[in-house]
Amino acid sequence: MRHLLGIEGWRRDELESLLDRAKAHLPGGPDATHLLRGRVVANVFFEDSTRTRTSFHMAAKGLGASVLNWTHTGSSVSKGETLLDTARNIEATGPVAIVMRHRSSGAPHLVAKHVKCAVINAGDGTHEHPSQALLDAFTLRQRWGSLEGRTVLIVGDVLHSRVARSNLHCLKALGARVVMCGPPTLMPPGLEALGAEVTHNLDAALPQADAVMCLRIQLERQGQAFLPSTREYARLFGLNAAREARMKADAVVMHPGPINRGVELAPAVADGPRSVILEQVSNGVAVRRAILEVCAA
Amino acid sequence: MRHLLGIEGWRRDELESLLDRAKAHLPGGPDATHLLRGRVVANVFFEDSTRTRTSFHMAAKGLGASVLNWTHTGSSVSKGETLLDTARNIEATGPVAIVMRHRSSGAPHLVAKHVKCAVINAGDGTHEHPSQALLDAFTLRQRWGSLEGRTVLIVGDVLHSRVARSNLHCLKALGARVVMCGPPTLMPPGLEALGAEVTHNLDAALPQADAVMCLRIQLERQGQAFLPSTREYARLFGLNAAREARMKADAVVMHPGPINRGVELAPAVADGPRSVILEQVSNGVAVRRAILEVCAA
Amino acid sequence: MRHLLGIEGWRRDELESLLDRAKAHLPGGPDATHLLRGRVVANVFFEDSTRTRTSFHMAAKGLGASVLNWTHTGSSVSKGETLLDTARNIEATGPVAIVMRHRSSGAPHLVAKHVKCAVINAGDGTHEHPSQALLDAFTLRQRWGSLEGRTVLIVGDVLHSRVARSNLHCLKALGARVVMCGPPTLMPPGLEALGAEVTHNLDAALPQADAVMCLRIQLERQGQAFLPSTREYARLFGLNAAREARMKADAVVMHPGPINRGVELAPAVADGPRSVILEQVSNGVAVRRAILEVCAA
Repeated sequence: MRHLLGIEGWRRDELESLLDRAKAHLPGGPDATHLLRGRVVANVFFEDSTRTRTSFHMAAKGLGASVLNWTHTGSSVSKGETLLDTARNIEATGPVAIVMRHRSSGAPHLVAKHVKCAVINAGDGTHEHPSQALLDAFTLRQRWGSLEGRTVLIVGDVLHSRVARSNLHCLKALGARVVMCGPPTLMPPGLEALGAEVTHNLDAALPQADAVMCLRIQLERQGQAFLPSTREYARLFGLNAAREARMKADAVVMHPGPINRGVELAPAVADGPRSVILEQVSNGVAVRRAILEVCAA
Repeated sequence: MRHLLGIEGWRRDELESLLDRAKAHLPGGPDATHLLRGRVVANVFFEDSTRTRTSFHMAAKGLGASVLNWTHTGSSVSKGETLLDTARNIEATGPVAIVMRHRSSGAPHLVAKHVKCAVINAGDGTHEHPSQALLDAFTLRQRWGSLEGRTVLIVGDVLHSRVARSNLHCLKALGARVVMCGPPTLMPPGLEALGAEVTHNLDAALPQADAVMCLRIQLERQGQAFLPSTREYARLFGLNAAREARMKADAVVMHPGPINRGVELAPAVADGPRSVILEQVSNGVAVRRAILEVCAA
Repeated sequence: MRHLLGIEGWRRDELESLLDRAKAHLPGGPDATHLLRGRVVANVFFEDSTRTRTSFHMAAKGLGASVLNWTHTGSSVSKGETLLDTARNIEATGPVAIVMRHRSSGAPHLVAKHVKCAVINAGDGTHEHPSQALLDAFTLRQRWGSLEGRTVLIVGDVLHSRVARSNLHCLKALGARVVMCGPPTLMPPGLEALGAEVTHNLDAALPQADAVMCLRIQLERQGQAFLPSTREYARLFGLNAAREARMKADAVVMHPGPINRGVELAPAVADGPRSVILEQVSNGVAVRRAILEVCAA
């Protein structure tokens, strides 16, 4: 048993071993329902989610586990129970892993210190979203073989993005060059120290990229001073058809979803030939099977 | 693989073949868990539902599938994701069928054009509710053998009823005579062109019916100009004990649920000897197993 | 098939037989997935719950059943359906047991009169919570062998507590002495007639107890005239370190959860060496497996 709290701290060979293992879990691969047969995986979501919750659910089922769905609505959190008490209570019922999402950065780390089962971070505040970074890397490896020397351009609200943070750690560990691009107010300090290059000029950065990963603009933050209007954002940082035309011939477009169509991504690009967005979703199940296998089997 | 988007367009022999197949799925029938063993059925409900969601859930389990429950609360729809993006994301995780309910007529048809798995309409707006019509027809066939020449009287808010619309197509295709009865403001134009007879006089129509199907009055529409008060509705169109006494000796009473007791149905009639309402629910699981078998196995 | 509506009316030998049976369902026990293989257990919760719902879910899975989760949000109750119609509809889909929680005392008894499957009360209003009392007794038996002659002190809002009521019946039936302690306004009349001793002085009662069961103060009732402030409550009836020091050397501390830390229980006591609170949760799954086995297998 081990936790997956973040990508930070995983070695390259560990990441590659997990990604290699995920290949066996692609559709058409060998039956894997013996791996967690009779075990329970607890899906504990304190924040809304479609794809991550769904993906872990199907991953767990694919390993033969049953899934306990716990959501913040209809639970004892509405009675004022603390996070740790909730987690320890779930643990006491016997799951092999707790997959958890929480609005507070560090929440899974706190839980992991107090439970004996595996804790898998499915997104904590603005901190990490490791399974997303792993499925992104898996998708690029499927296409490229290796990420060594490739350039990945991450565009958008990097400041608030756990996807960007986990991808930075993961891509760097796997040998890629990472360029971060967004409005100055949405770029955290210290990215260079983590190995990223930083720019605010999307048009200058675009032609170098082998992959462009557009982050989701969180519309619920609109109206806050640091955020441009969606129209302004789309003009400066949206990936539209004109920009797409200046990308490398075989460069791909990624997005962690859910997409704001017409804001960070033009519909024609989201649904176009460069888009690997649905491959990301599909690969997510295989990668999360591998995560559950490594952490809980 | 095929979709079940509506009854319209299914031929009589196709409907009968599906209804015949459903018999094998009645309680006590042969084990059917090999049919979708290891597969996933996604239950995608954008509208509240007890019985339809529950029924499809148990049908899928009875075929050995696992069920992915997706509801509009706690999902990325609350983040503004489009219907198609949600559907394509669910599809990308690998289900064999998407069972979906949506408040907009035509939503499942739109989804079906863009996904490769089977799409089963579990109710779309005021358009169709095909699995309900099939379980209604199954219930009547169990009792009568054939619907040929039988008269089914459908009473209530036909204008807004997807149940009425699907039943009209299904009952006509199976050879029954269909009479629609309700307040003039709640009857859509064009019913005669689809083969229905129309009346506004329940007391006159009642003695001819072999089955009376009471539609649910949607109390949330109360106060709108076209709708009588519940008291007025019950007086004119409610099936009470006095009216029941004038029905044919062996005629049955149906309701798709949930019942407004004392409005469209008197409690004594809902729970009385003519009522096949719980048979409808029970048969629903068998019919939905057959639907999943035909569409996704 | 039999119901579990309350502890009242179960004989001592029946309770002991069920508790003995639960031992086989502890972690590491023999596989029990044949007991309800292919069957469905309906988890029907009209009130929020984490631990009870989760625990029954895992218990049912451990017996090989699949679980149908039904909650009051997103259901036809929001369309005004009656309790009995909802229950009969769920029953008509074929579960072997309905596990139900409802805010109204007596709701499961009403349902049990009208359905043919087993009904298991998972908490009804201020009336009973039998599976909680059984797991509490199981936890004490694991520690003591027998409850005969032991003193259990139940502290708090006894008036509104279904946990207290079920425990009183269970503990008395198993031969224990039960002392109830709380503010005079929160003690119902007639406890003595049921075999309890009553006191309002926690400090006097504490040294005699072999187990202290702290009830949850329902903060949502704060502001009502009969309830002291939480500060006042903690001072008079909270189990803090100073009070814990005056307990018998081997006496244990119990709580049904969720805990209000710092109100009825000091954190140091909740997490301290006397606490069997997480054992209660863990034993809950084994006890609920035995309940489902006895009622539905």
